[in-house]
Amino acid sequence: MRKVAVIGVGQSKFGELWDYSFRDIVLSAGIEAIEDAGLEGREIEAMYIGNMSGGRFLAQEHIAALIADYSGLAELHIPSTRVEGADASGGLALRQAYLAVASGLHDIVIAAGAEKVTDVGEKAVEILSSGLDREWEVFNGVTLASLFAIIARLHMDKYGTRAEDLAMISVKNHKNAVRNPKAQFKREISIDVALSSPYVAEPLRVFDCAPVSDGAAVIVLASEEVARKYTDTPIYISASAQATDYIALSSRRDFTTMDAVVFAAREAYKKAGIEPKDIDVAEVHDSFTIAELLAYEDLGFVEKGKGAELIREGVTELDGELPVNPSGGLKACGHAAGATGIRQAVEITLQLRGEAKGRQVDAETGLTMNIGGTGATAVVTIFRR
Amino acid sequence: MRKVAVIGVGQSKFGELWDYSFRDIVLSAGIEAIEDAGLEGREIEAMYIGNMSGGRFLAQEHIAALIADYSGLAELHIPSTRVEGADASGGLALRQAYLAVASGLHDIVIAAGAEKVTDVGEKAVEILSSGLDREWEVFNGVTLASLFAIIARLHMDKYGTRAEDLAMISVKNHKNAVRNPKAQFKREISIDVALSSPYVAEPLRVFDCAPVSDGAAVIVLASEEVARKYTDTPIYISASAQATDYIALSSRRDFTTMDAVVFAAREAYKKAGIEPKDIDVAEVHDSFTIAELLAYEDLGFVEKGKGAELIREGVTELDGELPVNPSGGLKACGHAAGATGIRQAVEITLQLRGEAKGRQVDAETGLTMNIGGTGATAVVTIFRR
Repeated sequence: MRKVAVIGVGQSKFGELWDYSFRDIVLSAGIEAIEDAGLEGREIEAMYIGNMSGGRFLAQEHIAALIADYSGLAELHIPSTRVEGADASGGLALRQAYLAVASGLHDIVIAAGAEKVTDVGEKAVEILSSGLDREWEVFNGVTLASLFAIIARLHMDKYGTRAEDLAMISVKNHKNAVRNPKAQFKREISIDVALSSPYVAEPLRVFDCAPVSDGAAVIVLASEEVARKYTDTPIYISASAQATDYIALSSRRDFTTMDAVVFAAREAYKKAGIEPKDIDVAEVHDSFTIAELLAYEDLGFVEKGKGAELIREGVTELDGELPVNPSGGLKACGHAAGATGIRQAVEITLQLRGEAKGRQVDAETGLTMNIGGTGATAVVTIFRR
Repeated sequence: MRKVAVIGVGQSKFGELWDYSFRDIVLSAGIEAIEDAGLEGREIEAMYIGNMSGGRFLAQEHIAALIADYSGLAELHIPSTRVEGADASGGLALRQAYLAVASGLHDIVIAAGAEKVTDVGEKAVEILSSGLDREWEVFNGVTLASLFAIIARLHMDKYGTRAEDLAMISVKNHKNAVRNPKAQFKREISIDVALSSPYVAEPLRVFDCAPVSDGAAVIVLASEEVARKYTDTPIYISASAQATDYIALSSRRDFTTMDAVVFAAREAYKKAGIEPKDIDVAEVHDSFTIAELLAYEDLGFVEKGKGAELIREGVTELDGELPVNPSGGLKACGHAAGATGIRQAVEITLQLRGEAKGRQVDAETGLTMNIGGTGATAVVTIFRR
């Protein structure tokens, strides 16, 4: 396998983008990425697109052909492939694009993630739950929030995690998002505000839940040799790993451990030849605050059950030892389903390049972790300068 | 890139499978493929699943995790990835699985395609049209059949193709399906029956249109070295190629040529080091009879405009020089959207192994061609004994 580098990144604004169509947000991210790389369209050899539910959000499948066409690339007839794994779709697209370059098949490949969620109004919650088990979970009235509430309650009972710990994760991520011009919520919140917000599914409150967002993110990958022609600051992907778990939470070994994350992380560290302590910055899948706390544990940043210590001690704050979600995360930068895995990679690239401006951290090695649903799919990617 | 072989194939029955759930049909095909390969589940290293619209047909996304789970593989935590390109989804899954083995990443990989279409009743036609351009085609009332009717009418006007030529393709495919135990329509039709059936979209009649089907197909791929341990009759994939075109028919250079098919075929022949005349048997995407006729031309079996000659002269009949759709094709074996690309590969494998029983043809080299919508995505795969 060849070395693969990120040579361009772009992202749309994240949020309720009423004035922009799906095509608009994809193009805005794509143009930014291509300009960032200094590429011309005809140099692109293949595209992988992460999208969770174009069918239900837009009545549009065949999203990869649509995007190739609206990007002006149809006449090149290059392969363009959509991959889907609920809200891990972006991570899957990144991985397939990485493999296409690493294998020597292509030299320059686009990985994109995009979702237009808000046009369907309140149906969004039901559609986003189609990443769960329809027959054994959703049919019985279960939603994403209610499953993560079960996980949170069990973690509290078993390990003494408190509602305050979860609220502090939300407060941190809102604080970070203020410094991210692309973020949906650029407003700090206090822990009192978080803890007095209404319950969505007890013990999870409004401020424990990532919003429903529109957004797109695009990343350009190239082989090491080709990358040098385009950039003086290539960011290398030193490992990509993917794992699967039982789709229904009720089937899993331990409700408070995401085995797919544990497996993918273990493989990624092994491939990169590093240990969890070598990670300097991470973007993790905080669809709910409890998911970020589990990530601390399942990625090996801290022992199982002790996730709360990292937020209590400020380790994962922007100025901490291991900043997590400097972008604001899914909670405050926004969660546009299929876009999220790519948006995380954009943030880590900016951080490792030293281009994250007001939210810059000191980092040589970064990690992204993206899951689908309650963790039936997990993708872990490690980047280094 | 390493050599890749097919070591196992399986398929469910195709048709209106009211008594079987999505999970049932996937499992029936999967078990058949794994038994055919003589594999144990724990030997599988990754899965790629082609599915067009689980979101709209089943309210279920995250299909790849669901299938890994219901196949009893969740505890292995192997990567399982859904790919989508409308009714080319199966072809895309085959290609990604092929690349995963060819690149040396994995030794044994599953490619599956599955769709449960009929449960949504008459909504199926609208959902299947979500492979077209929603904003510029479907919104205006266009369906798949009406676009293929335009293509057929233009081909007739430009090249003198007749309704009888199209009907003969349908008659041939029905005749072949009688010999295929997994086919949806095991009944011969006469040309008079075809030509007196009601119009769906003039000049296309009921018998010019593939049915709406449920079905699944699974194929096991392995590296050459590993393949030898499992089978004495490995079927090699000598080329896989994918191309994209404008999603809306109205944007294309020539309505009667599928440029994505032309490009993918050209690349596939080049990679395999062969010419169109070297193909002994083909399974092509006859979602409408005119699509099979275009395939004759765009795959280079005959000069542009002369597709009708091949059916008039019996070249593509089961006992002809180049049998096309010995399985009965989409028209008579059935068209289960995301399953089709894999089902085609299953048929070519059986033919090249000499296991196609009553419909066996004499062949060393075979080809599958799978498109999405009206051809915005095309996948061409070449197989040899």
